[in-house]
Amino acid sequence: MTAPTMNTAEQYALITRRLAELNGASCERLRQLLSEGKSPSFLWSHIGYFIPLIKFADFVRAGGEVVLEVVDSYAFLVNYKYPWDQVRHRTIYYRSLVTAVLNAIGVPMSKVTMVDQSSYQGNPKYLLDFWKMCTLCSQQDLRSTGQEVGAATMLSPMLTPLVQELALEHLGADVELGGTDQRGTFDLGQRCLPQLGFNPRAHFMNTLLPSLTGGKMSSSHPAHTKIMFLDNPAEVRAKIASASCPARSTQDNGVLPIAEHIIFPISEIWAYNSGRAFEGVRPRHSYHRRAFVADGAPAGTLFSIKTSEASNPQAYYRNFSAYQYLERDYVAGAVQPENLKEAVAKALNMLLEEIRSDYEQSEDWVSSDWIGYPEDWSGPRDRR
Amino acid sequence: MTAPTMNTAEQYALITRRLAELNGASCERLRQLLSEGKSPSFLWSHIGYFIPLIKFADFVRAGGEVVLEVVDSYAFLVNYKYPWDQVRHRTIYYRSLVTAVLNAIGVPMSKVTMVDQSSYQGNPKYLLDFWKMCTLCSQQDLRSTGQEVGAATMLSPMLTPLVQELALEHLGADVELGGTDQRGTFDLGQRCLPQLGFNPRAHFMNTLLPSLTGGKMSSSHPAHTKIMFLDNPAEVRAKIASASCPARSTQDNGVLPIAEHIIFPISEIWAYNSGRAFEGVRPRHSYHRRAFVADGAPAGTLFSIKTSEASNPQAYYRNFSAYQYLERDYVAGAVQPENLKEAVAKALNMLLEEIRSDYEQSEDWVSSDWIGYPEDWSGPRDRR
Repeated sequence: MTAPTMNTAEQYALITRRLAELNGASCERLRQLLSEGKSPSFLWSHIGYFIPLIKFADFVRAGGEVVLEVVDSYAFLVNYKYPWDQVRHRTIYYRSLVTAVLNAIGVPMSKVTMVDQSSYQGNPKYLLDFWKMCTLCSQQDLRSTGQEVGAATMLSPMLTPLVQELALEHLGADVELGGTDQRGTFDLGQRCLPQLGFNPRAHFMNTLLPSLTGGKMSSSHPAHTKIMFLDNPAEVRAKIASASCPARSTQDNGVLPIAEHIIFPISEIWAYNSGRAFEGVRPRHSYHRRAFVADGAPAGTLFSIKTSEASNPQAYYRNFSAYQYLERDYVAGAVQPENLKEAVAKALNMLLEEIRSDYEQSEDWVSSDWIGYPEDWSGPRDRR
Repeated sequence: MTAPTMNTAEQYALITRRLAELNGASCERLRQLLSEGKSPSFLWSHIGYFIPLIKFADFVRAGGEVVLEVVDSYAFLVNYKYPWDQVRHRTIYYRSLVTAVLNAIGVPMSKVTMVDQSSYQGNPKYLLDFWKMCTLCSQQDLRSTGQEVGAATMLSPMLTPLVQELALEHLGADVELGGTDQRGTFDLGQRCLPQLGFNPRAHFMNTLLPSLTGGKMSSSHPAHTKIMFLDNPAEVRAKIASASCPARSTQDNGVLPIAEHIIFPISEIWAYNSGRAFEGVRPRHSYHRRAFVADGAPAGTLFSIKTSEASNPQAYYRNFSAYQYLERDYVAGAVQPENLKEAVAKALNMLLEEIRSDYEQSEDWVSSDWIGYPEDWSGPRDRR
């Protein structure tokens, strides 16, 4: 499917907005596919963040389809602690979570395919390609892909960059999307796939959302520095309330990036979707737009922030059609930290409410959470 | 099949003669299988030497069957130089060579199964077991298995000990045989297979034949220090003639070990086979016994050496029923280096003649030699 009203330059711009390309070859590869009128297939294999999931909406809008790999083997190889059966339960958890998040964002599921990584790794062609790739890489090549593999003492994490890049060929995907922490693995794929005789792939990287303290987000950081998809409304409000958010400053600000990378892009997707009948988009999104945009806001508004000024004790809304206007007003002091925090917490809670509600209605998802993560299960206690 | 006339202690003694066990668990495992009346299945995955192939005769005589794994994946992973198609041609070469050597020795092929390693590694159960095994081993565990893996800078050689030991489970073999250079890999298998929930296996190690110079044999040594299966008669005579063979000394002697580890054991197999109708044993062995044993030698003779003494200028034969008698006479000076060399060269040439003849009659074997080893092809030039 090619987006009917778009030329290839528009498709390219839409696909690559807010992304860093890996290198010139990535750009060239994508431009070529689009100029041939082909629908690019996108692969995204790291689950857990809104930002890449939001990018899917652009990919689909540009006429592409998304292959979402559920990386059971990868997760098993990189953890070397949890047994395979437990990891398999986590795949149910991830499939459920990603489906709920994509629905909440408004990405049409008819354009998304989910594939368990282990489901195709048993085929003889894969095995041979895997052995071949192992002969193309030195141990140091793999350690150089990133900090996690570089620091590993066990064997299995060394295999994960190979497994990740081979997926592109075996899932027939043209483009891979990952965080900027994937640069080393993407470099490996850029080198090795052509050495195996496969078409080179395009690799693009999305920004990583910073922590609520303003620094780098990390899975090893304490829970209060990040908002989880299943946090309840009070947790979200409390985490945002205690987040780093210095007045008039973007420095070490943990709240502005949520507006920039999550709220504005999602609101833009909803605005776009409301003018189209996108297959698979659930109607409840039109309701939720109210969480982001005030009644009576001018056309084009993507985010409204309730604020108050000394000269006008009555609350009123400032309406923004793009993130840079919010940042400008914030730095100027026209939007105070407490105004920003309240609006962001409210918007996030409306967004997460859909995800929480899907979770509570899905026995499969809840039980996969419980069985897959027994030591840190965070679901409703009465379900246990 | 259990050998009908043997009790389990006799079976055990036959299987383990001339071998080092890996550890007590290996002995215990084999004793248990035999006491349960089960036919052990033996795995041997390194091809190229007479000594382990000779052991197969004992395994089969004790009621076992042999699975001979043609290690295409292993060879590919450890070389990381030659392309897969070339490695696959080498498997044809190895299958042909091993069949010819087993026929020359007199091991009944009806008890030997050959399996290409890559043929079962694509099944999903294998894949999962492979991933699991990768999570059980540190990088250092693998480096510690032996010098070759320990010195490797590429990734692929690190995988070879895992692939080797997993084979035991996936080929359903009870016992693994390898050279004493396999100790580290066998230790890894002893630890990991039970951790994967599999039955422990017995591991036994055969002596490695020393080089013709008397030192350790190595594939990196020059060709004149070792006899190849396809050497022609003149090459064999010249190599033995120039071998280290000090009079009256076993020290640094490169010829006595050939008598000990190849000629006596094979002669013993032929003596045994001549009293039995072993399925699959080709009749020409009775002819070849003459190369080893002189006409009119007393019953029980396994090797005859033509010698001469000052008091009796006419050549006559000394007949030996076991290697230790030859060694005793050699140390005493009753057998001179030139006597030993002549008898060993003659015996080896009679043995290799069968292998050479099989090679020359097999288009498949010759062409796999040519395609699989283009840079050091040693076959008849006019066949090219």
